[in-house]
Amino acid sequence: MVKVAVLGYGTIGSGVVEVLNTSRDIVTRNAGTEVEVKYVLDLRDFPGDPVEKILVHDYARIVNDPEVDIIVEVMGGTHPAYEFVKDALLKGKNVCTSNKALVAEFGPELVKIAKEKSVNFLFEASVGGGIPIIRPILRSLNVDTFYEITGILNGTTNYILTKMYDEGGSFEEALKEAQALGYAEADPSADVDGFDAARKIAILSGLMYGKNLDFEQLSIEGIRHISKIDMDYAKFLGKKIKLLGITYNINGEIYTEVAPHMIGPENKLYNVDDVKNGIELKGNLLGDTMFYGAGAGKLPTASAVVSDIIDEAKHLHTNIPILWSDEPVILAERGRHKSKFFIRVDRNYDEIKNKFDLEQLVTLPDYQDEYAVVTAEMTFAEFYEKIGNKEHVRSIVQVK
Amino acid sequence: MVKVAVLGYGTIGSGVVEVLNTSRDIVTRNAGTEVEVKYVLDLRDFPGDPVEKILVHDYARIVNDPEVDIIVEVMGGTHPAYEFVKDALLKGKNVCTSNKALVAEFGPELVKIAKEKSVNFLFEASVGGGIPIIRPILRSLNVDTFYEITGILNGTTNYILTKMYDEGGSFEEALKEAQALGYAEADPSADVDGFDAARKIAILSGLMYGKNLDFEQLSIEGIRHISKIDMDYAKFLGKKIKLLGITYNINGEIYTEVAPHMIGPENKLYNVDDVKNGIELKGNLLGDTMFYGAGAGKLPTASAVVSDIIDEAKHLHTNIPILWSDEPVILAERGRHKSKFFIRVDRNYDEIKNKFDLEQLVTLPDYQDEYAVVTAEMTFAEFYEKIGNKEHVRSIVQVK
Repeated sequence: MVKVAVLGYGTIGSGVVEVLNTSRDIVTRNAGTEVEVKYVLDLRDFPGDPVEKILVHDYARIVNDPEVDIIVEVMGGTHPAYEFVKDALLKGKNVCTSNKALVAEFGPELVKIAKEKSVNFLFEASVGGGIPIIRPILRSLNVDTFYEITGILNGTTNYILTKMYDEGGSFEEALKEAQALGYAEADPSADVDGFDAARKIAILSGLMYGKNLDFEQLSIEGIRHISKIDMDYAKFLGKKIKLLGITYNINGEIYTEVAPHMIGPENKLYNVDDVKNGIELKGNLLGDTMFYGAGAGKLPTASAVVSDIIDEAKHLHTNIPILWSDEPVILAERGRHKSKFFIRVDRNYDEIKNKFDLEQLVTLPDYQDEYAVVTAEMTFAEFYEKIGNKEHVRSIVQVK
Repeated sequence: MVKVAVLGYGTIGSGVVEVLNTSRDIVTRNAGTEVEVKYVLDLRDFPGDPVEKILVHDYARIVNDPEVDIIVEVMGGTHPAYEFVKDALLKGKNVCTSNKALVAEFGPELVKIAKEKSVNFLFEASVGGGIPIIRPILRSLNVDTFYEITGILNGTTNYILTKMYDEGGSFEEALKEAQALGYAEADPSADVDGFDAARKIAILSGLMYGKNLDFEQLSIEGIRHISKIDMDYAKFLGKKIKLLGITYNINGEIYTEVAPHMIGPENKLYNVDDVKNGIELKGNLLGDTMFYGAGAGKLPTASAVVSDIIDEAKHLHTNIPILWSDEPVILAERGRHKSKFFIRVDRNYDEIKNKFDLEQLVTLPDYQDEYAVVTAEMTFAEFYEKIGNKEHVRSIVQVK
């Protein structure tokens, strides 16, 4: 019998308790032992909820109970999650979490403490929700040297962009709909400004390079500025707009960013729509591999957390190695990175179409006062030099 | 230091030796110990090849050498692979394999022996080549109850169908091209008649249900009968034709088959082209998940084999549990299974279009002497009853 404490009884926490109850047999069979939730920690009370009997408000009771083997941190946020998790690991307890903010900021440190204490710190649910991605990177694919990871890592923005594409509405309309459906927060900044995706690509990059990538170093561009007009051009060009987290390594030069991109149907992520996530890995042996699935949601995320609980139940006092040092990843200068660019410009401003090598020049009947171009591939440095002051430029989106 | 013997120095075997050599550092780091190839078994000699020095012709030397910890079976075929592997497990050695014929036929027995001997029998490379699929099913996703797996599991047939779609040629022409490129064997039956895909879906089904599915029980239909004309209709209907391995469980009724299907762009497998494989899993918690990648090829397959070697090097005397009993999966009668059907018929034979509930009725200018229909969904039993004698029927393909 393994005893678990769940920190936080929100969406994911209640999902974890539900899955452990409803899937009791399959969990026991896979863990090789019964798994029981001994405590749930939350500041709130839940009168009438079955969890009431095991609800505690005081973390010390949990961490000092020698019967607790595994602590499931699903509170979100970095404080006090970080203090709780660190304390638990130092006291020799296994921890698993779905908290990408925690993992992105403190992953290498917590992995190191777990190793020193011969316990485990696992975080499958922190990226890609229910999609198994962390474990495949660490285990199944541990022979490959990856040189690129590209992912649609945020379900909220993917929902908004899919709505805008399908229904032709504005960003604001699609955001309102996402909020009404519970896919977006009242304050949507973490999603729509790209920070959530940035944390996730920072975690994946960290594991890919075995080093620490501070997500605040990244170039991060969200989707607020993507307009109905941009989407109309994208459609005309046979493309969709997707918010991509990208990291790649060319001859030792590492580049990582989050930004909206126009991508065409030949791209494996083109069909990843609605709240779904998709993650593409490129390795030296394996070539291209893609994982697709539910990137968020109560039960998918809970199922990933419970897969970590099972792994920890089987390895209570054996550290499963994770190679993720705190040595920083050194990023190449952004200017050296290459892209194609979609640029929309005032009609009477010819300079843009004359200055760039163009792949396409487009005018749409609905937008008579402007034109758009898709440039050939060029470095960011060249691009910014050529585009100069952006007075007549209405929009810029990277193109894959 | 862990010592390995590789049985068979063909494409995969030489790939495994190559990967262990070229990725020595990353393998050592992940396995936590050095991995050395002590023997390669093959009937042939390889004069001048570096492997010459460690080549043996006599299996007894390998299996009786107490220094050998892991035996890598990449010979293919069931005999003597089965005898060698069983003997090795009984003698307390770990075994990993890429051999789907072996795993499909003897998987549960070999898994059981490994458990009894506290060693491991792993077979990640037997399905999906380099795509991590066995491990995610067993581990990451071990909380879900799956109710469906659908996959493009055979790269050769997918290449042929992609060629026919892209270039409008016949099956025979595309097969010749696949043979010229080394994607298809001189005797292509195992691929084009669906047996390879059947073995793979039998393995996946077995793991999904935790029971043994004898692949010879399955309904297996290959792609030899798919013509340029079928492909032209598929295109007109906005669909592609893909050879799918399918297993699903509806209220305890299990159905498994391999057959070509017309699928549309809303299907996640629609964009899985050329020699690539794609596998879709549907689980009660996770919803839909899809894995995409290189389903065959020397280095992708070798990388999956080496990931098993690493796992075994870390668990030399600890069995990693695999729930796969020899209790047989009981399949539901085929007649109860439902599908839509594409039927091509002689123009003057009206009976078909009058007898079925139709979703579509199509005539193409190039084929004036026939018409085609897509029926509504119906059971196979109803379908066979209605279609009667098939004298005027030119082609039947399932439609998703």
